[in-house]
Formats: sequence, C-alpha cells, structure tokens
Amino acid sequence: MTQETSKRIILAKRPVGMPTIEDFQFEEGPLPQPGEGEVLIRTSYLSVDPYMRGRMNDRKSYVPPYELGKVILGGAVGEVILSQADEFQVGDIVVGNLGWQTHAVAKANQLKKVDEQLAPITTALGILGMTGLTAYFGLLDIGQPKAEETVVVSGAAGAVGTVVGQIAKIKGCRVVGIAGSDAKIRYLIDELGFDAAINYKATDRRAVLAKECPNGVDVYFDNVGGEISDDVMLLLNKHARIPICGQIALYNMTKPDFGPRMQSQLLITSSLMKGFIVSDYLQRFEEGAIQLAEWVKEGRLKYREQIAEGFENTVDAFLGLFTGENLGKQLVRVK
Amino acid sequence: MTQETSKRIILAKRPVGMPTIEDFQFEEGPLPQPGEGEVLIRTSYLSVDPYMRGRMNDRKSYVPPYELGKVILGGAVGEVILSQADEFQVGDIVVGNLGWQTHAVAKANQLKKVDEQLAPITTALGILGMTGLTAYFGLLDIGQPKAEETVVVSGAAGAVGTVVGQIAKIKGCRVVGIAGSDAKIRYLIDELGFDAAINYKATDRRAVLAKECPNGVDVYFDNVGGEISDDVMLLLNKHARIPICGQIALYNMTKPDFGPRMQSQLLITSSLMKGFIVSDYLQRFEEGAIQLAEWVKEGRLKYREQIAEGFENTVDAFLGLFTGENLGKQLVRVK
Repeated sequence: MTQETSKRIILAKRPVGMPTIEDFQFEEGPLPQPGEGEVLIRTSYLSVDPYMRGRMNDRKSYVPPYELGKVILGGAVGEVILSQADEFQVGDIVVGNLGWQTHAVAKANQLKKVDEQLAPITTALGILGMTGLTAYFGLLDIGQPKAEETVVVSGAAGAVGTVVGQIAKIKGCRVVGIAGSDAKIRYLIDELGFDAAINYKATDRRAVLAKECPNGVDVYFDNVGGEISDDVMLLLNKHARIPICGQIALYNMTKPDFGPRMQSQLLITSSLMKGFIVSDYLQRFEEGAIQLAEWVKEGRLKYREQIAEGFENTVDAFLGLFTGENLGKQLVRVK
Repeated sequence: MTQETSKRIILAKRPVGMPTIEDFQFEEGPLPQPGEGEVLIRTSYLSVDPYMRGRMNDRKSYVPPYELGKVILGGAVGEVILSQADEFQVGDIVVGNLGWQTHAVAKANQLKKVDEQLAPITTALGILGMTGLTAYFGLLDIGQPKAEETVVVSGAAGAVGTVVGQIAKIKGCRVVGIAGSDAKIRYLIDELGFDAAINYKATDRRAVLAKECPNGVDVYFDNVGGEISDDVMLLLNKHARIPICGQIALYNMTKPDFGPRMQSQLLITSSLMKGFIVSDYLQRFEEGAIQLAEWVKEGRLKYREQIAEGFENTVDAFLGLFTGENLGKQLVRVK
C-alpha cells in the first residue's frame, strides 16, 4: 500500500517576459498536518488566472509578489480529508486560496464551504467565485451601466469578460466585446447574446469599433490595456466610466508601456477611470454571490469552463491564458 | 462729443502650437443694443484662462470650439449701462460669460449679480467665481481629501492651484505644490502655508517629490499633465484619487502626447482618475460659493490677482499663462 504524498508547484525563478516551464518547479513530499483550528484538504480543482503573472514579478502591486521557493498561491476547491476545526467535517467541499498543490492545510476562517446542491463545485472558482464577483463589482460599482448605454469589454471571451458582458445585457445595455478569434466572437454573439464582438487583430479595428458603437462608449471594462484601450478611449462619451480590471496585454512585457496619455481624453469627456481588485469589495461579497447565483439559476448568466486534466498540466494551462487559447474560465482538475 | 464704441477681440486663425498675436484680431464698432429681457454691459474686468487655449482648436472637447471670426468667450464682470430686463438695473455689477470685449449684450438669465459689499468685484472671476468653484468641487468631490493624507497639486501657483492647496490645508492634509519658479515656491510655502513646494524644473524632480511625500500620495490634483504627472503617479498610495482639472503642459503641443500609460498604476493601487469641468457641478454652485466666501472672510483662503492694465493687453495676458509668468488669477482691467 502506497502512502499518499503531496505535490506542489513552486516559483523557481522570476519570469522575464512570457513565463516558461523552467520558471516553475514540481516538488513532492509527505502530507502536511493540520494544527488546531486547521484542516487538511485534498484539492480537486485549481484556478489559473492572468493576475498571477503580476505576482511573479518582484514589484509592488495590489497583492504582494509570490515568494521564490514557495508554492504559487491561487484559488482552489477541494475536500476536507482531516479536520482539527469545529467548523468543518471530513468530506466537506471548501474553497480558499489554497495554491497550486494537491494537498493544503488551511485555517478554518480562511475557507468557505461550497454548496454542492447549488451548482457544480467548479463554479466556486468561476462564475460564483472571485471571477464572477470581479465582473459584478467592477461593472456595477465602477461602471454603473444604465439601460440603453453602450458597454465595451475587452478580453471579452475570458472568464471575467463573459460575465461582464452578460450582466451589462441584463442591465439593458448595448454590449460590444473585443476578443482575439472568430470562434470567440461567434460564442459571444451567438451564445452569450452580445450585440457585437470585434476581433482585435482586425487591421481596421478602430473603424470597426466606431461602427459598432454608433452612440459612443459609456462604459469600457478594461481587461487588456495597451493599444486596444487607446482605440476605445477615442470613443468615450461625456461622463464615461472605465473600470480597470486587468492589463493582460502588458503582463509579459519587458519594456515600459508607452502610449498616448489618457488624461486629456478623461478631461474633455469628464470621464472616470478606476483600477480595482475584487478584495476592495470584501464587505459586499455576500450580496454579489447571492445575485450571481440567482442569475445563473434563472439561466440569465451562462458560463463556460475549460478544464485541463491533471495537476502536471497546471503550468501549461496557466501559460495558455497568454496565447489567446482559452475561452471562459480556465481550471485544472487535479486528478 | 465722441460716441462710445465697442471693441472686441475675435479669433482670426486657429493657433498651431503656442498662439501668437496674429491669431487674434481687434475689431471696433457701434455699441450693441439689448433686446427684450437683455441688458447692455460695459465690462470692467476680463478673465484669461488656460482652458481657453483648448477652445481655440477645432476639436471636440468639453466645451465647443470657438468659432473663427467670433469674439473669444470667457468670464467677465461689468456694469449694466442699459437694461431691458426686470432683473437688472443700470449700475448693477454682474458677472457672466461675456467674452473679450468692452461691451456685451446678455440675457438676464445668463448673468449673476455681484455683491460689491462681500469682496472686490474681481473675486467674482477668481476665488469666488469659476476658479474657486473649480478648485472646490474638483478637490472635495473627486479628491475627497482626509486629514493627514498627502495632497499634491500641480500648477500650484496658478489660479486654481492656490485655492486647491489652501482647501486641502483647511481639511488637515499635508500639501505639496509643484510650480515653476523659486518665487512661486516661496509664495506657496510662506504665504499660503503649503507644507512643501517643488520646482518642476529641478533635475532630480522625481527624487525631490518622493522626499516631500514620505507617506506617498493620496490625492493628486492635476492641472498640467505630461511628465510631471508621470512622476507623481509613481507615488500613489492604495485608493488614491486624481482629479484631472487641466493639462496646461499639452495645450500648445502640436504632437500627440505620448508617455507611460497610466492604467497599470491605477490598477495596482485601486486608484481613481477623473476628468471634470466646473459646469459638471452647476447644481451645487451655491453651496460652493457660500463656503468659499466664508473661508475668505475668515482669512483662511488667501488669493492673489494679477491684473493687466488695458483691454489692448488682453492677448498678452493670455499668452503669459503659458510662459510661467503669472501667479494666482490673471485678469485684465478693461479701462
């Protein structure tokens, strides 16, 4: 009988530009043991997200950088297999910031129980988890879309973008997505009900954008940054709102990001631009989670998950986020 | 006996880069006649403001461009010399968007009576007028400064900047001004009570800024844009607020304004950047005017006016705004 062991992925080197498999290292060891008030979890699904790339750099950011030689942290769901905490029993399904590992020890107060009856447990990492909440608060609190307004979302086929566009449709807006392949564009229009979607690789992107936003842009939900954003900024209406959620176009850049400064555009349109991270809304997570679950139940919010099979493919799944391969939420099934 | 005539300055050409005297034309003619509900005003003081440069370009902006061949519009105070409106009598002092001319006809509902007892009538164009209100709403509504926070203001010795810094002091903040001469810096610190002021021409500007903002920057009130702003943006604290009031560094640029894109900085600090124009707050002008007058009366808000003598010097006074000559509010005494 083989003893169960724990595998984990640590940050071996800080990537320069696009990360490679050499920046990571797989480790194996005995199962960690929970202390008082802690539980041991066998992870079932891991989340891989674009923001993680930022944490691999050694620079001040909205979350501290990953430490070299330590496990890559990120959301995961799993099953409690040993409990030293009153709040959890063996067999409970939980979600938390467990990291890229097959087993994790966590304090009870850093975990949330997942309701298996409500929806597949993977949704706790996506539409009903941080991804959904990011879209919900960024769009509704900063973007404040009103019926009939035009909402443009970049990275539209990504995990956050798909939710943003659908919530904007629920709010009665004209929704224009920007994505990187014809398949994604078809998905946004045909399956998610976007009014229009634009391939950012189009040579006449600026003209196409203007054509699809005949009344200008009231909300620009920005996941990507760079030149795509430059083009959208030219179409802002008076009092436009721009939630800055991510800048995926820049995460692997090794040079400073230069472009037209945005201040004049914001000035002449009295527009608002605001960066945010979902934890800014920690006090309102419950509100968001209830609303998202309701919309999912009513069939008004659809989602797609792309699941890589096997813990050993975690790094590949992560790298795929930057090559335009994934559509919707990217997860890894541990085993 | 000579008949009184009216003089006015029209936009003859759209300036390219820094305007020159040739872009303007002086005209003289008979006095205009007020219609029903209108008054004829002899202007006493004209306002010259940086934002006017923007209106000389033929591009979409927060206010429509000036028309070629038409009088340059802008704030002015003057005396009613003929009234066809019940609301005003001959001898009343009024303020309105009267333009660069010695006489103007205006509708009663576009004028405001100036209380000569409250303060010198020039203040209706400055500290108690659009200038003061611009500082008041931009700083308090967008900047939302809290006691102990650090507020940086660029164009600090200008009409708006001097008011911004003083209101921030009233709110208990550490206030750091950025200006363009040692005389201005002394004025800001010695007379207005700024905690620090920095010459933007300093070669080690970035280091000096960091030194004067040891706790980072919570509010950056931006009047100038360009590279000065780039440097301030590096010091933003979490949840910083950046009212964009003007971009004087750019108004005379003939090339597009390129620099580091701001979105990443806003993202990693969850900061807010918002452009505005004072008319966004039209509904709250009364509130602002009352508070400003109270602070002036209490001696907590000081102001300095620089008054060019003679209508014929209006263009020169305007051009001086872009060469770093003026300190405080720049006005022209018509005669």
